[in-house]
Amino acid sequence: MTRVVELIERKRDGGRLEAGEIDALVQGYVRGEIPDYQLSAFCMAVLWRGMDARETAALTAAMVRSGERLDLSRFGRVVDKHSTGGVGDKTTLVVAPLVAACGAPVAKMSGRGLGFSGGTLDKLASFTGYRVDLSSAEFLAQLGRIGIVLSGQSADLAPADGLLYALRDTTGTVPSIPLIASSIMSKKIAAGASAVVLDVKVGRGAFVKDLGQARELARAMVAIGRAERLAVTCELTDMDQPLGHAVGNALEVREAIETLRGDGPPDLVRLAVLAGAEMLVLARRARDKRTAAARIDRAIQDGSGLAKLRELVSAQGGDAALVDDTAGLPRAAEVETLRATRTAWVGDLAADTIGIASLRLGAGREKKGDRIDLSTGIVLRAKVGTRVERGEPYAEVHCSGRRSDAEAIELVRSAFRWSSSRVPARRLVLGRIASR
Amino acid sequence: MTRVVELIERKRDGGRLEAGEIDALVQGYVRGEIPDYQLSAFCMAVLWRGMDARETAALTAAMVRSGERLDLSRFGRVVDKHSTGGVGDKTTLVVAPLVAACGAPVAKMSGRGLGFSGGTLDKLASFTGYRVDLSSAEFLAQLGRIGIVLSGQSADLAPADGLLYALRDTTGTVPSIPLIASSIMSKKIAAGASAVVLDVKVGRGAFVKDLGQARELARAMVAIGRAERLAVTCELTDMDQPLGHAVGNALEVREAIETLRGDGPPDLVRLAVLAGAEMLVLARRARDKRTAAARIDRAIQDGSGLAKLRELVSAQGGDAALVDDTAGLPRAAEVETLRATRTAWVGDLAADTIGIASLRLGAGREKKGDRIDLSTGIVLRAKVGTRVERGEPYAEVHCSGRRSDAEAIELVRSAFRWSSSRVPARRLVLGRIASR
Repeated sequence: MTRVVELIERKRDGGRLEAGEIDALVQGYVRGEIPDYQLSAFCMAVLWRGMDARETAALTAAMVRSGERLDLSRFGRVVDKHSTGGVGDKTTLVVAPLVAACGAPVAKMSGRGLGFSGGTLDKLASFTGYRVDLSSAEFLAQLGRIGIVLSGQSADLAPADGLLYALRDTTGTVPSIPLIASSIMSKKIAAGASAVVLDVKVGRGAFVKDLGQARELARAMVAIGRAERLAVTCELTDMDQPLGHAVGNALEVREAIETLRGDGPPDLVRLAVLAGAEMLVLARRARDKRTAAARIDRAIQDGSGLAKLRELVSAQGGDAALVDDTAGLPRAAEVETLRATRTAWVGDLAADTIGIASLRLGAGREKKGDRIDLSTGIVLRAKVGTRVERGEPYAEVHCSGRRSDAEAIELVRSAFRWSSSRVPARRLVLGRIASR
Repeated sequence: MTRVVELIERKRDGGRLEAGEIDALVQGYVRGEIPDYQLSAFCMAVLWRGMDARETAALTAAMVRSGERLDLSRFGRVVDKHSTGGVGDKTTLVVAPLVAACGAPVAKMSGRGLGFSGGTLDKLASFTGYRVDLSSAEFLAQLGRIGIVLSGQSADLAPADGLLYALRDTTGTVPSIPLIASSIMSKKIAAGASAVVLDVKVGRGAFVKDLGQARELARAMVAIGRAERLAVTCELTDMDQPLGHAVGNALEVREAIETLRGDGPPDLVRLAVLAGAEMLVLARRARDKRTAAARIDRAIQDGSGLAKLRELVSAQGGDAALVDDTAGLPRAAEVETLRATRTAWVGDLAADTIGIASLRLGAGREKKGDRIDLSTGIVLRAKVGTRVERGEPYAEVHCSGRRSDAEAIELVRSAFRWSSSRVPARRLVLGRIASR
């Protein structure tokens, strides 16, 4: 085999690697034959020089090959859904039950969040007893029985991705389009998806800050899908302000339940219907997006989505009664209500600042292993374009008596910019890139 | 302290680091608190983004601070000499005795070579019994007694440089101007030099391939010298064809001795006089370069340089009789003589090809720990511009019966390009960059 240092040098000098060379790097790393310090230098060279579509596809395939690959073919077309993450993004909790209620199997493995607030797994922990460590057998059995399963990432799937991500996290090599794209896609492919709907978040509250980069990431993932014969649809959506009203784990669960009850905030409802419709079409359960959207909408109106969530929570050992009695979800000790000092429109609402406030409240994780406070967070009573009367509340900060609470409250206050004239609401959907 | 990953990210994004941050990185690495994989990613980011003069000086100072610093002040101004390395570069073996013979103390620590042929230490091993592992006490005592010492790099001096170099060597992060400049200068500063003459080699046989890069490297080293109050003179010299006639360890020792006897090849003599004169001026043993050059020249003519070499070899336990009877130096089993097939001028002589031929003959080291054959190598009877008559020899290949000998002979043949019209000799000295 070519020496590892020569592969690093070639990438450093802007050259390209063959699929076999990339595979040897990845498998050699997983087997412990190639040391961390060579892989981290390689990742920095990739961040610098990039990878073309063939290299990115080869990297993805190599990470899939590093472990097991789930076979879901007996369930027909299983469509996965993934968001690149943002502040207040509880879409999965809404979309997964809706799609399953429409008859398309949903088998999703999620990660724990690093960053502004918890990941889907953390949010689900609000249902006391909910298990996220299903075995493969349990995972498949539940999918067959109730058509929906939301569990943790299995260590047996794409183990190279887990190792590589941990290394990238400590070596400043996270923000590379080919490395991000292959990381996301390798997990989806290993988890047995036939098709994937990807929500690429763009803006201050996402790791992708501008639309150009978001398009590049979406194209990279669609290209990987093409190489792996996996249909991929990317929605590019706004994350310059948070999604919905709630930010924080139990608060987001409550908002997801309200949305399934037909009482959700307009942006979250819109996104849930859009993503759900894309999933139904890719799963071939609807002939076009319009029909699919109508079915998703019906699953909200007739309560079948909510019923599916109840079924899911119950099947995974969680307290399903909380779906109907959200008052029993974790609650913060104090709620600080922020009120407008004059009548004005919200001109700007910085998602990143709200995200940091959420971290300070204990709702997010600064580093791996940090404990998350499920009860704390922020409820935004107003979003960009909302008119708020003097003295009316525009945000609630749910705190649990931390030293950093005062800082968090100040951050929430500073995240809002006010305008004395009318401001239009922000566009939610910024683009769509799909494999066909 | 700022988290290491933030320092990596800042450099990755093209920012600059403070001196204290660089020092924390280096000392943390030497103490084993910062892992290899973070440092290698950092080095790749430095290779990509560069370092400004202040950062490079801070890195050098940090590497010096990582170990002991030799105090040579009792000997007055001690001038060190360093070459960035090339094919057939035996200048140190000639210059050091000449400068010492002129009354300026020469205390030089050399490394073992990695690459085309051995380093100065390997060449000195041709004098049976020569010790390169002097203790600090022995090193200082010999300098006081005979005014010259040529020994190995002490592990106590700039240990960070040794660690970092080993890491860079396996991670594709060697060719970075600030990393190279700080590596060279940290060793010189730790070894107690008051001033340094640097020979920056440029061309196919050097790691710096073009004059622009060579100037950049020279300026970086002069800037480090300025920050550390160390006078630095860089000569930029040609390494597109090998230096002198001999390539290979014992062959180069013989050529060095011939040069000290007044019978050296013109380019080597010129470089030795030039570098020696610069050293005498920096050591304040001559008022200008012209006077200094005349004194170096006299030390060749009157045999005092050769006598000093004899004294050096004897002081370090080597067989000094070999200085007068070079027939006793290691000799290869076979000599293949290459003869011109037509009368022509040497139009080109590729130093890199000769270097690879030397490696194939066993005279160099492909990786650390490889054994070196002292006897083998190449003698170039003709250099660029030499007219060779049909049937006359233009090169000798000294082999020891390796399987790769035939390949080496073919390489030497292919390194020569012939011209049917006159070709001018190559310019040796390409530039000079000095601190004043």
